Amino acid sequence: NIIEYIFRAIDARKTEFIDRLREAVAIPSVSTDPAHRPDVVRMVKWVKNQLEKLGTKCELYVAGNQTLHDGTKLELPPILFGTLGEDKNKKTLLVYGHLDVQPAAKEDGWNSEPFKLLEKDGKLYGRGATDDKAPVLGWINAIETMQMNNIDVPVNIKFCFEAMEESGSEGLDETLRARKDTFMSNVDFTCISDNYWLGKTKPCITYGLRGVCYYFIEIDAVNQDLHSGCFGGTVYEPMADMVWIMSQLTDLDGHINIKGLNEMVAPVTPEERKLYEKMDFDMVRFEEYRQDIGAVKLLKKTKEELLMARWRNPTLSLHGIEGAFGGPGAKTIIPAKLIGKFSIRIVPNMHPDKVDKLVVEHLNELWKKRGSPNRFKAYSSHSGNYWLSDFKHPHYQCGARAMKTVYGVEPDYTREGGSIPITLTFEEVTGNNVLLLPIGGGDDMAHSQNEKINVSNYIEGTKVLGAYLLELAAM
Amino acid sequence: NIIEYIFRAIDARKTEFIDRLREAVAIPSVSTDPAHRPDVVRMVKWVKNQLEKLGTKCELYVAGNQTLHDGTKLELPPILFGTLGEDKNKKTLLVYGHLDVQPAAKEDGWNSEPFKLLEKDGKLYGRGATDDKAPVLGWINAIETMQMNNIDVPVNIKFCFEAMEESGSEGLDETLRARKDTFMSNVDFTCISDNYWLGKTKPCITYGLRGVCYYFIEIDAVNQDLHSGCFGGTVYEPMADMVWIMSQLTDLDGHINIKGLNEMVAPVTPEERKLYEKMDFDMVRFEEYRQDIGAVKLLKKTKEELLMARWRNPTLSLHGIEGAFGGPGAKTIIPAKLIGKFSIRIVPNMHPDKVDKLVVEHLNELWKKRGSPNRFKAYSSHSGNYWLSDFKHPHYQCGARAMKTVYGVEPDYTREGGSIPITLTFEEVTGNNVLLLPIGGGDDMAHSQNEKINVSNYIEGTKVLGAYLLELAAM
Repeated sequence: NIIEYIFRAIDARKTEFIDRLREAVAIPSVSTDPAHRPDVVRMVKWVKNQLEKLGTKCELYVAGNQTLHDGTKLELPPILFGTLGEDKNKKTLLVYGHLDVQPAAKEDGWNSEPFKLLEKDGKLYGRGATDDKAPVLGWINAIETMQMNNIDVPVNIKFCFEAMEESGSEGLDETLRARKDTFMSNVDFTCISDNYWLGKTKPCITYGLRGVCYYFIEIDAVNQDLHSGCFGGTVYEPMADMVWIMSQLTDLDGHINIKGLNEMVAPVTPEERKLYEKMDFDMVRFEEYRQDIGAVKLLKKTKEELLMARWRNPTLSLHGIEGAFGGPGAKTIIPAKLIGKFSIRIVPNMHPDKVDKLVVEHLNELWKKRGSPNRFKAYSSHSGNYWLSDFKHPHYQCGARAMKTVYGVEPDYTREGGSIPITLTFEEVTGNNVLLLPIGGGDDMAHSQNEKINVSNYIEGTKVLGAYLLELAAM
Repeated sequence: NIIEYIFRAIDARKTEFIDRLREAVAIPSVSTDPAHRPDVVRMVKWVKNQLEKLGTKCELYVAGNQTLHDGTKLELPPILFGTLGEDKNKKTLLVYGHLDVQPAAKEDGWNSEPFKLLEKDGKLYGRGATDDKAPVLGWINAIETMQMNNIDVPVNIKFCFEAMEESGSEGLDETLRARKDTFMSNVDFTCISDNYWLGKTKPCITYGLRGVCYYFIEIDAVNQDLHSGCFGGTVYEPMADMVWIMSQLTDLDGHINIKGLNEMVAPVTPEERKLYEKMDFDMVRFEEYRQDIGAVKLLKKTKEELLMARWRNPTLSLHGIEGAFGGPGAKTIIPAKLIGKFSIRIVPNMHPDKVDKLVVEHLNELWKKRGSPNRFKAYSSHSGNYWLSDFKHPHYQCGARAMKTVYGVEPDYTREGGSIPITLTFEEVTGNNVLLLPIGGGDDMAHSQNEKINVSNYIEGTKVLGAYLLELAAM
């Protein structure tokens, strides 16, 4: 049949696809480093060229300037918008990916040159290999193979490839919103391949992300840092106030002591609970997780508890205290003004506005209870909503069938603990379903030393993307 | 008369003395920062050169290596020993000062470049201006002026200028003890000018200092900082442990919650209480003190309570948490390893060894109570004993007469809240009286942003040091 035919064609081009990834990894498109900005732009143009060979109409859009730490301005790398097919009888898929990468240097502990793809033991090592160059090339590989074999792509495809994802996607959100009624207007579904499997062997589809609400607690006691010998004993020290208020927010077991917050969390449905049972995560993997991070003991005892704690329950993390003495050695100051920082990962149905209100009210009440005469201000620094899709949506079933065709198993339906804020933007701006379709393994080490993607994940992932495109015909 | 003559000569050289201080402040001799070690050494050599011009025989002595946090060794800056005059018919004065400074950066909130002396409204701003470069130069200014005018200095002078005072005077104590029978053997009295007036207008002589016991609390949870989205909810966060344990140490009113500690404090004698009555500190000054530091409300209500809290009662200050996120903006990490830092100012009769034992035991008990599985270690980083002298000693009367000659008033007899641990060493090693003769004002902001010394304190202080040298003839 047609799908077997495409899969064989993809297998036959394996070396060619690896060479394509080698070429992409060789461009050090590090967006956080201004010195690499020309490489980032080169990477965008390289992909534009690949898309144009497929017949895609491309546009490079510069969303403005970035203001660097020292105040200088640097032009943002262009966002690559592409349109492949404008058949009114077809639905339109929007594909998002990013072309920039995290910094990397051999000295950081890489076993090989990070910007030189190394194939070893079935793995392709290189910065950006899995995050997010292989997934981006997967689309190109799949579409190109279909075109070469005269197989009709049953949907119009729009591409949105940015190159500032590792730098907070600067400029993207506004650009997408500004194109709500033009480029984005007729998108029927969005697919993002920029996350990872839960484990190493079983594919998954991701239908939820936690949001984040970030808070600042300002306590201002005196004009400037004071010598603790000269002034200690005469002032209400703000560090004492700060550690007290921070200590009131959680219990040892991580329970959040903010009235009304836990009540907002959507209960686990039986259907959701079932998803966890067959999840590719056993007690061996649980123990591996503990050892990987080096914790003496984890907060949770079972696989379900652990995954739910990461994905579908809120957590509060204390990040630090700006203005306190944080350097090495000993300094005998009474810090004058402090900004305590913490954030809450939010989940359905915790709406950021309501969370902000509860948290700030709670902090103000705690402050009243403390009774300190110092100046106090608690406020939200920023927030990003959680995202939850419906894993039973027909669009998700297209992805699931594609995965089952390639791997012979039903994928897991997972969530992630972190945020990918742009997911929400696509959903809001298009008004339609967004699917996260990871192709990399859970041990790919994105952002870390020795980032890799397995050859099999890259090639089978290309097949998944091809099969998914064909499945979309049924939508 | 001779003293008037010297005072006029000092006044005439004002610009020259300010330029000399400018040159000294321009050398960023920050002893806590290994990167500044060459500047510290440069500062020592610069002062050595100044002393040699006076005819002082100088020696630079390196007391060994310092072991940094990462285990590397760094050579200590040399201690500058000088001998000016070896007349067997004269008594010998030992002068101590320090040439290193606290760290400073414009970004910390300085209104001007910290290492560029700024003269403004009769004040000289700069890191180290008052602590302790102006006092050190005061001696050089006074002696040089006497020499230029052929006035005999009636005592032999020994100099001991170190450059690790802001880093716990590492190496000095052992060095002085090793020289007990050589350099230190014939010292008749020691004078240290490294503290401050109580107020802004009336001079004082200081007869007591608090000691300090500094503690580190280490909490180690995981191998490296974790993404709070991906890992939040699964680990026992060390920041939660840290703020809890820190919050247990004091009450809002500053009371220290460590069993047995407050019971060690010596009661106030009637003679001591009397000193407080005439002290240059009334409710106007009390209110000024509050306004100067910018506190909404002070911990104490009366002048006596306030001064006793600073000078003769213990206090506990929380300084900060190394390893937590301390920068501006928002970062979503779970810090992996933390070192919480606090210190206790100790007073008669709190012996550091006994205090250390009580504190570490108390911290270990608190940790047991917390019940966290994370790795924990609490220990003393360093300590310095309190010091108490006899303000009725003839040597003190020399200082008092010098001050009266310059300022026309009897100085107050004060104590200080801070520590100058080396004071104790000088007293022990020489077996003779040690006098603290401050020249800087009570609002000089040593260790803080915008450290300064008034032009008048610098110049009149130079006169006090000159007058004191002449008074010593009577001893």
